[in-house]
Amino acid sequence: MSDARSAKTREPKLDTSPPRGMRDVLPDEVEVRDRAIATILDVYRRHGFQRIETPAVENIKLLTRGEGGENEKLIFKILKRGEKLTAARDPEDLADLGLRFDLTIPLARYYANNHARLPQPLKAIQIGSVWRAERPQHGRFRQFTQCDIDILGVSSEIAEIELILATADALLSLGLADLTVRVNDRRILAAIARRCGFAEGRFDSVFIALDKLDKVDTAGVIRELEVAGHPAQAIGELMGLLEDAHGLSRFLAGGGEPAAWQGLQRISDTVAASAAGRFRIAFDPTLVRGMAYYTGPIFEIRYADSASSIAGGGRYDRMIGRLLGRDVPATGFSIGFERVIGILTERPVASADAADRLAIVFDEDTSHLAAILERAREDRGKGHVVLLELKRKNLGRQLQDLETRGFGRIGIVGHDGTYEWRGPKA
Amino acid sequence: MSDARSAKTREPKLDTSPPRGMRDVLPDEVEVRDRAIATILDVYRRHGFQRIETPAVENIKLLTRGEGGENEKLIFKILKRGEKLTAARDPEDLADLGLRFDLTIPLARYYANNHARLPQPLKAIQIGSVWRAERPQHGRFRQFTQCDIDILGVSSEIAEIELILATADALLSLGLADLTVRVNDRRILAAIARRCGFAEGRFDSVFIALDKLDKVDTAGVIRELEVAGHPAQAIGELMGLLEDAHGLSRFLAGGGEPAAWQGLQRISDTVAASAAGRFRIAFDPTLVRGMAYYTGPIFEIRYADSASSIAGGGRYDRMIGRLLGRDVPATGFSIGFERVIGILTERPVASADAADRLAIVFDEDTSHLAAILERAREDRGKGHVVLLELKRKNLGRQLQDLETRGFGRIGIVGHDGTYEWRGPKA
Repeated sequence: MSDARSAKTREPKLDTSPPRGMRDVLPDEVEVRDRAIATILDVYRRHGFQRIETPAVENIKLLTRGEGGENEKLIFKILKRGEKLTAARDPEDLADLGLRFDLTIPLARYYANNHARLPQPLKAIQIGSVWRAERPQHGRFRQFTQCDIDILGVSSEIAEIELILATADALLSLGLADLTVRVNDRRILAAIARRCGFAEGRFDSVFIALDKLDKVDTAGVIRELEVAGHPAQAIGELMGLLEDAHGLSRFLAGGGEPAAWQGLQRISDTVAASAAGRFRIAFDPTLVRGMAYYTGPIFEIRYADSASSIAGGGRYDRMIGRLLGRDVPATGFSIGFERVIGILTERPVASADAADRLAIVFDEDTSHLAAILERAREDRGKGHVVLLELKRKNLGRQLQDLETRGFGRIGIVGHDGTYEWRGPKA
Repeated sequence: MSDARSAKTREPKLDTSPPRGMRDVLPDEVEVRDRAIATILDVYRRHGFQRIETPAVENIKLLTRGEGGENEKLIFKILKRGEKLTAARDPEDLADLGLRFDLTIPLARYYANNHARLPQPLKAIQIGSVWRAERPQHGRFRQFTQCDIDILGVSSEIAEIELILATADALLSLGLADLTVRVNDRRILAAIARRCGFAEGRFDSVFIALDKLDKVDTAGVIRELEVAGHPAQAIGELMGLLEDAHGLSRFLAGGGEPAAWQGLQRISDTVAASAAGRFRIAFDPTLVRGMAYYTGPIFEIRYADSASSIAGGGRYDRMIGRLLGRDVPATGFSIGFERVIGILTERPVASADAADRLAIVFDEDTSHLAAILERAREDRGKGHVVLLELKRKNLGRQLQDLETRGFGRIGIVGHDGTYEWRGPKA
């Protein structure tokens, strides 16, 4: 209520950019994002999933238990409050909270905290922001949206089948045809590595190299395995097995991991039958997925001929047990929301609804304001967007702006209260 | 991919509560919240507003310039990264970012940063979380949702009229009838204080006391003014003037603040005509609103006979100028979203859509999975929610659970693939 901050005593101009690596979203993109979220939510709800919400902030102890892998190095930590930050303190002690870097670890905590009040099994939707202090680069931001579904409490592959069908349905509903689902199983990856003779404790580095097959070529992967010190014979066995589809499935059906293999077959066959050509599904023994917490089937979806995925997920049957004290089977599928929005915003936007978007332009001193408002109310009641604007000095420019913004009908109110209409007749 | 974190090597159980003062939202409440947001967004968009988004995090310098008042003491500060936190550092220097505590200061920054790419005037919707480290108490949380509309670039009262009509429309669409809009103007408050003889530099403490008229009684306000050291004569004048509606309007129309008064009259008369009895609007000379940045008309909405408001706002013509270097007229209206949700969740929920909610229960080893999935797909295509569930040992309990969760039709698939239906026939 003080006047001290008037225009006259203005302080030096502040930088008005958003924080480094973060961004402001302009109205047109927000609309694309909101529509996509509404579509996805609608599909997921029809599949029987329900949205849940957790705080953006979690206790730092929960976030730093190793399950987040590299992401744990990227946590935005929140300063403790009401404590003296004395010189003696360990920097590790300065923060007790952190911004979440994914939605899976908060989901596990949520389930452990609320399971008695939740439907069993839980089919959860989560859509929300996550934060990672990554080095800023083009198209990558430090705050971004994740969009996950998870099924907690089902060990059957029916859970994977439901996740894949629901996620593909959501992406198809967004207009993304030409989808390929790739599936694999962490147990199968381990069986392959074991069979080829890699050292039991070093499977991780085999998988990490294998994961790059679609980014570098075979020679590059072989080189990486050699540099990592794996035996030449194991590397040769692995490459041979991956090129021999028949030999591989013979191994997997037989001595390898028969239960995992049968599960994958069931997932693939059932999903393929239900997809009925609307999208493809294929086994890919080179599919790895990054996170350490996966324990069974893993899967991702690629769009058109893109080499990177627009959705990914898998089974993580041991995470909840670490919090709850008893294991709860769990599997989840996450849409790469920012990547999907990137694809959607590159497309021409259908502006079919321009005729439903009215702008009414009038003079500040009009004596017909009540009638204008009443008319706007009626048109809004019919579902139209009605924008009211005061007439500007440069009316021609104003009308042009409004047309550019997608207002298909523009009414200019004269001094006598009559409307001069631009655009198609009502 | 390591096995080291299996159930066998489980560490001691972690506290799985959300951080102090924050909360997990259960599926049923999320649904109420999502529906309310969809309704509000739909109304605001039909009024020509567009949603914008800013990061949850802002530079600490932006958040601590005095505009946030008491809220600035409640900022969750984010620890600097990649810097040595040496003993010599000032605690003030440990954080460079903070979680936003409202949506108005970020909006001003957003406008200053993006105005060249934004529609002029800007009619912005903001719905998002804000964070305040308040002392936890019943029904108050440290993360909560705000829901604002703002018009930037319009100095005419048409902006206030649009804000009030859109906000009332949104609340009515949520089913909240029995609304009263109260309006006042900061310039009128100042004129009253001046006229009564309060000291020019001490109006703030007069307003703060006045603001409590609906919580304490008149005697309590008088006492507070006396304790604050205001002259008895000024206090007497003030109380006399507030009880004499005619005298007050005579003063305001005449010597007081004629421009502000005429503006308020225009707002009240136009809104009342457009409301046509759907809600009420009234001048209230005791309305203050908390924030220091208001410069003109202020307003709030009360629901039924509640003493506290469910929406509030006002004009703040000087805030953007502090960032942009030139003043931009601005006014906004914020729905108290958490309070509204509190009212909505107390009401009986219409479960009219139970017949649209199907659950299909089947055996894990069914040979009819493909047909079940196909049927589910068809029903989802008709807009139904279709939940698939594996049959549990206690089927009776499972069916009861599903009915409680609002599934109006439950199909139990037999070994021969036929359905036994519970609930009304399709």
